[in-house]
Amino acid sequence: MYCVEVRDRIMIAHSLPDAFFGPAQGMHGATFVVDVAFFRETLTAKNVVIDIGAALDVLKQTLKPLAYQNLDELPMFAGRLTTTEFLAKHIFDAIAAAARDGSLGEDGRGLASIRVTLHETDLARASYEGSVI
Amino acid sequence: MYCVEVRDRIMIAHSLPDAFFGPAQGMHGATFVVDVAFFRETLTAKNVVIDIGAALDVLKQTLKPLAYQNLDELPMFAGRLTTTEFLAKHIFDAIAAAARDGSLGEDGRGLASIRVTLHETDLARASYEGSVI
Amino acid sequence: MYCVEVRDRIMIAHSLPDAFFGPAQGMHGATFVVDVAFFRETLTAKNVVIDIGAALDVLKQTLKPLAYQNLDELPMFAGRLTTTEFLAKHIFDAIAAAARDGSLGEDGRGLASIRVTLHETDLARASYEGSVI
Amino acid sequence: MYCVEVRDRIMIAHSLPDAFFGPAQGMHGATFVVDVAFFRETLTAKNVVIDIGAALDVLKQTLKPLAYQNLDELPMFAGRLTTTEFLAKHIFDAIAAAARDGSLGEDGRGLASIRVTLHETDLARASYEGSVI
Amino acid sequence: MYCVEVRDRIMIAHSLPDAFFGPAQGMHGATFVVDVAFFRETLTAKNVVIDIGAALDVLKQTLKPLAYQNLDELPMFAGRLTTTEFLAKHIFDAIAAAARDGSLGEDGRGLASIRVTLHETDLARASYEGSVI
Amino acid sequence: MYCVEVRDRIMIAHSLPDAFFGPAQGMHGATFVVDVAFFRETLTAKNVVIDIGAALDVLKQTLKPLAYQNLDELPMFAGRLTTTEFLAKHIFDAIAAAARDGSLGEDGRGLASIRVTLHETDLARASYEGSVI
Repeated sequence: MYCVEVRDRIMIAHSLPDAFFGPAQGMHGATFVVDVAFFRETLTAKNVVIDIGAALDVLKQTLKPLAYQNLDELPMFAGRLTTTEFLAKHIFDAIAAAARDGSLGEDGRGLASIRVTLHETDLARASYEGSVI
Repeated sequence: MYCVEVRDRIMIAHSLPDAFFGPAQGMHGATFVVDVAFFRETLTAKNVVIDIGAALDVLKQTLKPLAYQNLDELPMFAGRLTTTEFLAKHIFDAIAAAARDGSLGEDGRGLASIRVTLHETDLARASYEGSVI
Repeated sequence: MYCVEVRDRIMIAHSLPDAFFGPAQGMHGATFVVDVAFFRETLTAKNVVIDIGAALDVLKQTLKPLAYQNLDELPMFAGRLTTTEFLAKHIFDAIAAAARDGSLGEDGRGLASIRVTLHETDLARASYEGSVI
Repeated sequence: MYCVEVRDRIMIAHSLPDAFFGPAQGMHGATFVVDVAFFRETLTAKNVVIDIGAALDVLKQTLKPLAYQNLDELPMFAGRLTTTEFLAKHIFDAIAAAARDGSLGEDGRGLASIRVTLHETDLARASYEGSVI
Repeated sequence: MYCVEVRDRIMIAHSLPDAFFGPAQGMHGATFVVDVAFFRETLTAKNVVIDIGAALDVLKQTLKPLAYQNLDELPMFAGRLTTTEFLAKHIFDAIAAAARDGSLGEDGRGLASIRVTLHETDLARASYEGSVI
Repeated sequence: MYCVEVRDRIMIAHSLPDAFFGPAQGMHGATFVVDVAFFRETLTAKNVVIDIGAALDVLKQTLKPLAYQNLDELPMFAGRLTTTEFLAKHIFDAIAAAARDGSLGEDGRGLASIRVTLHETDLARASYEGSVI
């Protein structure tokens, strides 16, 4: 299995309003360094997994509505606990949809799976990996 | 599949008394930076893989009997070659047991698998990944 | 010159309400990985620059009022632009004061200077370095 | 599953002569930091996945024909697009062959799979993982 | 002293045609991860060392003529040994000039010094630090 | 000022037999990732700070008597507290001597200063920087 992994980042505010989260219940924030890994069984005619420029563009477009935002105020997250795990899945869903609808180029349709990793500190990170098909 | 990975570290002395290990046969030591990854098919009701505080506590408790020790003098390792691979499995076993016995909270019982990685230098690391169930 | 450098981290929300900051004007947030370097011309009687445990405690105490906070709501920062540079100096001031007042132990009084570095993303960081005396 | 991963590096020149690669069509170059991960279901009698010295030697021998080369001038790559993905597979093939032919020692024959990762910048990397058998 | 440091990167080919450089005499290449640190005694009215957006733009403009190039073919480097140290100074000169001529904004004129670091592998890096004035 | 920095590593055992060191009083160990930075005002005729091959050789020779050793048993350290700071200075002294006696080549005599940094964990490091002359 081949893999190509690229990186971008966002800085956001949010709260996790549930006693479960202790000191993180109130308004705070995070830098999320976001790695997206694209998996493919065989290479394309150009010997790549994916057009890396298209991959970076789709990642940037996916992150844009979140960048420099207070996630608590985004309608799409109303009533949701925007944990790192939840955000990894949110970003995965957007990039997997881009792969399926051709936004990643024709080759994007040949991807086997995608993994989105969010590094939240030097000591903790979360990821979601799933099939594209 | 979701994953959350957290980090702690230990500094230990040990020897690897077998000609196979060449210069590492005698008493020497290592800093092991320890990453533990918890895998889960679905998120809990709190949108997490695991209570990250509980995970860090269990990791710290698991490492405590090893921290600042000479592993050659620990009865539990008598007659064992305490390679990095062996220690990764040792830590995995303790954390997997904690997941099964409820020490990681009720949600720990829903974990699919765990991976323990020990970084021994900037150029080498070892890991063990296994099912929790 | 000797140096010892230790690391901790905080996750905060804030806004930078000035047109100068473009997309960072609104409420957003950051993970700051904080490195504090202690400089000393000669080692203490114990062959160290500083009691590393005391250094980590003072760093943790310094960061505690900021951790998981919305900096916009902290009285001490009212009317201030809490840039990464500004926060590096804020943390420096607290740790330098601890060095001078003995909170870092007697040896803290022998420090020459301190440098506080805040990593805000994988691509950007800010620091403040100053004399302790 | 156990894993041991080791690191080496090469600095090469090459071109990617196809319009698909945009600015990378002309002669340019890269530092590839190369991580090779060896996977094994059970440890050997010495409690290791692989003789780490043998693994590093095989990796160095595999990289030697590429180190400080212009890949465009190597007969083995004539007419090939030497993308990072392609090179990951090229290195994988050589190391997997070494595992099968005994160059990694008798224990090399017990490996389950191998993963070769090439870091090309701080923001992008590619890998190939495959079965050894 | 305050400092802000930002990162970009280039991938280039070149040769070092002198027996001194051994295996690096022929055409090969490198990824240079480039960190530029801006030093300033006091913060600007906006509590920053430099407009980080302007800094990143100037860095990108400075690197653009080098990105994806064969340095041996660039007239500006004719007859020069384009070592990592030499390139650090080349980039420093361009950014220091930008600071002096106002391309970094009015605040750029208040910088005390600049340091340019080029990481060429995970094991080696070079830098040049100098006064702006 | 120009700088070139290179990296090597050692794995050692030692004890710090003084109540000051708490849990680190007994026999334990460490991986030290060692960075050595060479500073020079002007480049040599070959556009370098130092012959990087000679620098790596001298570093390896300096570390060899420590690698895979129990520092408590080395006569040169008898009665000394082998803290990370102390070891940074020990390595500095050896490399500075090599610079002065010509072991780093004729160019080594033109160095301004050297800095030796020992990373002991992902959270702590110590260094010593001094003049060569």
